[in-house]
Amino acid sequence: MLATVLHGKGDIRCEEVAEPKILKPTDAIIKLAASCVCGSDLWPYRGLQPMGGPAHMGHEYCGVVVEVGDEVKTVKPGQFVVGSFCISDNTCPHCRFGFPSSCEQREFMSGAQAPYARIPLADGTLVATPEMPADDLIPSLLAVSDVLGTGWYAADAARVQPGSTAVVVGDGAVGLMGVLSAKQMGADKIIAMSRHKSRQDLALEFGATHIVSERGDEGVARIKELTGGVGAESVLECVGTQEAMTQAMNCARPGGHIGFVGVPHGVQIDGQTLFFAQKSLMGGPAPVRRYLPYLMDLVLNREINPGKVFDLEIPLADVAEGYRAMDERRAIKALLRV
Amino acid sequence: MLATVLHGKGDIRCEEVAEPKILKPTDAIIKLAASCVCGSDLWPYRGLQPMGGPAHMGHEYCGVVVEVGDEVKTVKPGQFVVGSFCISDNTCPHCRFGFPSSCEQREFMSGAQAPYARIPLADGTLVATPEMPADDLIPSLLAVSDVLGTGWYAADAARVQPGSTAVVVGDGAVGLMGVLSAKQMGADKIIAMSRHKSRQDLALEFGATHIVSERGDEGVARIKELTGGVGAESVLECVGTQEAMTQAMNCARPGGHIGFVGVPHGVQIDGQTLFFAQKSLMGGPAPVRRYLPYLMDLVLNREINPGKVFDLEIPLADVAEGYRAMDERRAIKALLRV
Repeated sequence: MLATVLHGKGDIRCEEVAEPKILKPTDAIIKLAASCVCGSDLWPYRGLQPMGGPAHMGHEYCGVVVEVGDEVKTVKPGQFVVGSFCISDNTCPHCRFGFPSSCEQREFMSGAQAPYARIPLADGTLVATPEMPADDLIPSLLAVSDVLGTGWYAADAARVQPGSTAVVVGDGAVGLMGVLSAKQMGADKIIAMSRHKSRQDLALEFGATHIVSERGDEGVARIKELTGGVGAESVLECVGTQEAMTQAMNCARPGGHIGFVGVPHGVQIDGQTLFFAQKSLMGGPAPVRRYLPYLMDLVLNREINPGKVFDLEIPLADVAEGYRAMDERRAIKALLRV
Repeated sequence: MLATVLHGKGDIRCEEVAEPKILKPTDAIIKLAASCVCGSDLWPYRGLQPMGGPAHMGHEYCGVVVEVGDEVKTVKPGQFVVGSFCISDNTCPHCRFGFPSSCEQREFMSGAQAPYARIPLADGTLVATPEMPADDLIPSLLAVSDVLGTGWYAADAARVQPGSTAVVVGDGAVGLMGVLSAKQMGADKIIAMSRHKSRQDLALEFGATHIVSERGDEGVARIKELTGGVGAESVLECVGTQEAMTQAMNCARPGGHIGFVGVPHGVQIDGQTLFFAQKSLMGGPAPVRRYLPYLMDLVLNREINPGKVFDLEIPLADVAEGYRAMDERRAIKALLRV
């Protein structure tokens, strides 16, 4: 089959690879309904993350089960499923504690920018829909797999409460999903920090009440203006750079919470600064499996439409254009028709 | 009057200084019932913290009000009061949000290792007892002012819950108060990391269910053994060194919480490590003013006896011996009779 392989910095190709097979009795094979490019795929694409050779890309997925291993009990061929980008058994102590993204058997999904994919630990990882979803729901169900689940975790880790104020640092796809999540969790004031018109518009559509285009000290000053001089209870850091972390830290109020979901690259936190700032920090790979049933229901009931975050839709064969468009910030997030 | 002045590394003296006076209409002057030496006093005493000249030491206090400024309304001469080591107005947005230790008018108390002290923002900072407390309660009421309040905050920030497991890193006075606090909050398993017999004994008396004397990787392995292989929900970091922070990080389970109250000295946290560890961090100067009424009641009702943490009691004139004994770890915490 033709699938996506990253060979090195800037060198992403759609090329012939072997079709996935059941390797373990706990595996399932799915036929993808769609796939997409993640902001985190850009780190190795930009040469900012070491690679151990050509990599089969893609970790966001939904689709129809075509085959399962002998030990798989909860999903069967013909069912439509969504899974997390983190493979988990959903039975270990970390999973039961609500953190399947730290599962004792955790693997990170790969190879989902393809027509077919192997899903390890299918019972723990996949959740089936009650029936075959309508075609127009596919982008939103795909979003649940990572980008929405990650934005949701950012809001959860930042402890967004009904009536509270949330600031979202980063106007990438995850940040926009953070806006949607904060809205769903009942935040009263949702401030999206964004300098790009199209992203500002989408943030407003997802529930942002204010847009702040300034950054750095000016951005902090604007946040203070909008929060009675004190800063926000909740800040969602959705980038992963030192600049974004500093921005988040300075926008939160003392006693406030920062949920950080951008994989940190070169971020250092000074202990004494964090101490006197008196703000809580919680991050990590999102425990999407915990959220899947709830978020899938919201999508299936058409209460949320996270699929709107895909502003570029292209065939898998044109995957290189998807990476380029996202790298150049011409697209927020590219959906790949497989 | 004779009071404590730190002149430089290792040079602590009890010498003649001016008696405190009302400087602002919001001040109160108190006659101290007792004072004490804090673990944090040892940082400058050891030359590990820059000093801007001779410093009047002491920030933990309780005693009788002898004079108040014209604007003071909530306390009056003759009342017994306890205050926080953080001066706060108790009316600003940060105070109302529960973080008086980040008060817009915050000052850090000083000059309390003395017979008399000036307390700024008396209305916001001091809490009076209903009547004059019995003499034997003085050490415990003094402890509330900082060391207990700080241990309590460590447990609070680490989100200790009824039935949960808490690990306390650091067997200094704050760590021991962390043990007492975790016990009060209903933790089922309280693991004190300590290598000193007398401190182990006190930890057990305060409610520790297990003692771990190993450190580093061996310490982590022991914590894992005691927690079904997963680590603790709550870890109280009560030291402030890189070693202690690393220990805390490695003893917490994914999704667990670390409350850190040792003022960090040279502590750096790598963003990506924290991300993949998936543990929350919350620290800072303790919001003692928020806890004062509750903790004072526990003491006055003789439900807790935090004063036991003072294992050396000396006259103020011998303050140098108090610092030495704590520096050499011959004493956990020195109470100064004024």
